[in-house]
Amino acid sequence: MSGQAMPTSLTTALTAAQGEIEQALDILLPREEGREAPLFAAMRYAAMGGGKRMRGFLVLEGARQFNVARASALRVAAAIEMLHAYSLVHDDLPAMDDDDLRRGKPTVHKQWDEATAILVGDALQTQAFAVLAAPDTHPDPAVRAELCLHLALASGARGMVGGQMLDILAESATEPMTQAEIGRLQLLKTGKLIEFSAEAGAILGKAPAAQRMALCSYGHDVGAAFQIADDLLDATATVEEAGKATGKDAGAGKATLVSLLGLERAQVQAERLVAQARRHLDSFGEKAELLRQLADYAIQRRN
Amino acid sequence: MSGQAMPTSLTTALTAAQGEIEQALDILLPREEGREAPLFAAMRYAAMGGGKRMRGFLVLEGARQFNVARASALRVAAAIEMLHAYSLVHDDLPAMDDDDLRRGKPTVHKQWDEATAILVGDALQTQAFAVLAAPDTHPDPAVRAELCLHLALASGARGMVGGQMLDILAESATEPMTQAEIGRLQLLKTGKLIEFSAEAGAILGKAPAAQRMALCSYGHDVGAAFQIADDLLDATATVEEAGKATGKDAGAGKATLVSLLGLERAQVQAERLVAQARRHLDSFGEKAELLRQLADYAIQRRN
Repeated sequence: MSGQAMPTSLTTALTAAQGEIEQALDILLPREEGREAPLFAAMRYAAMGGGKRMRGFLVLEGARQFNVARASALRVAAAIEMLHAYSLVHDDLPAMDDDDLRRGKPTVHKQWDEATAILVGDALQTQAFAVLAAPDTHPDPAVRAELCLHLALASGARGMVGGQMLDILAESATEPMTQAEIGRLQLLKTGKLIEFSAEAGAILGKAPAAQRMALCSYGHDVGAAFQIADDLLDATATVEEAGKATGKDAGAGKATLVSLLGLERAQVQAERLVAQARRHLDSFGEKAELLRQLADYAIQRRN
Repeated sequence: MSGQAMPTSLTTALTAAQGEIEQALDILLPREEGREAPLFAAMRYAAMGGGKRMRGFLVLEGARQFNVARASALRVAAAIEMLHAYSLVHDDLPAMDDDDLRRGKPTVHKQWDEATAILVGDALQTQAFAVLAAPDTHPDPAVRAELCLHLALASGARGMVGGQMLDILAESATEPMTQAEIGRLQLLKTGKLIEFSAEAGAILGKAPAAQRMALCSYGHDVGAAFQIADDLLDATATVEEAGKATGKDAGAGKATLVSLLGLERAQVQAERLVAQARRHLDSFGEKAELLRQLADYAIQRRN
């Protein structure tokens, strides 16, 4: 992990996207008013004001390949970030990973309480689907229904939540997981949603099947590389660098590709995935340059 | 609460619907196989094998008014029952209502553990949207997108989850709630989803606005009556009759319309709502007879 600086063009675009996504979330999340204000406040706390917005950025850049209206892409980006935020809030709960810190701030159940955190996660998931299904997201209802369907497939029992279950089961398993099993766990737990983030732009743009598949494959490889980088980060970064607890995997005896392959071979594997991700973009030409840079960045970040 | 017998025609139709909905859930929930089998098993445990299926029955009967294909209506009925089941699983968690018993069986976090119960609820919510958004639910994607949108509106931060938040906040409030506040809490917590269940058939049937509104109003009134009946049941039924813990509201000092108005006036209020619900069906004629009987039954049941 070299920790190289991000290319200026990517830094600029990512910062701009973060601002736009933050603004979209501000509009799409309920205002803190009425008797339920604590719920709305906690939803905003969980979903706003932090995060790299890599998933949202993938949506925006994917959509840009097909000249999708920025307002449409931003709604989808915000919806996926809500879905991601819900998964973090529930993952942080005492019965799950039991984390006190997230993005350098107290987790929702620390700042409020467990009941609020459960409801915040539930409501953020619902709101993600509400945003995707609403007419403002795309004039064609077939696009909206397809976005809902594919978000559900990526994040449900056979996607993200299934991966979280595997993660929990792995902790009490007597046999260590094989490389293939770890790969599948991580594909489900984080890969599928990243894959869908890249694919969503193609859905919005009603892209031809080949281009949609290319973005999907790119997302698949970036997601896998990103997960290895996350595990490397957990193994090597300090709490200050990561903005959350580190060394947790080793502490929990949790098998990752890093614990299985060692730091160097895991790094090589991540680099191979990034090269493969870049090749999936060959047909997109110059316009996909930021997506290529993002793939590189996925394994160079320190937080 | 007279506890009268259900009319034979309603009993027959409700029993048949329960069987059909059970079958639909069996098809639409993931099979217990693979490493994630415990998640899938717990999802099936939570969503299947119990419940009156009132929400699902409302979908089926609403859809029948417009001659909607039974297979379409059954998918929507199953989706709403999944959504309802998710809310019960999370509501039963120790950080929420802390219930050990549901429909006479151990709750999910008792039968498995808290982490599994959190994930089961999450995945059941996702699966509800996956089912609604899938092409098999209706050939017209506009119908599917609208179903997703309205399920989300009924169940999210400004619907069911918002109501659950109000319920939690009420327990620690220093001032007792007014009748209007209790009414709003219950409309959000249980009413909106029952309302949507009745409306869903009209969405599936692309019904004219007036008929859709009539079903929606019917659902609104039945939902409110049902909630009062639930509170009456909590105040008067035994654990054996209800199949779950009773007397909890009074024990928790929780304000309900029953504690505010007393048993008799609450019962009168419920009867008034049922009469009003029936009037909303006037334009539907003979075909809506089961919906009328269901409204009566809502306040006569003992469990």
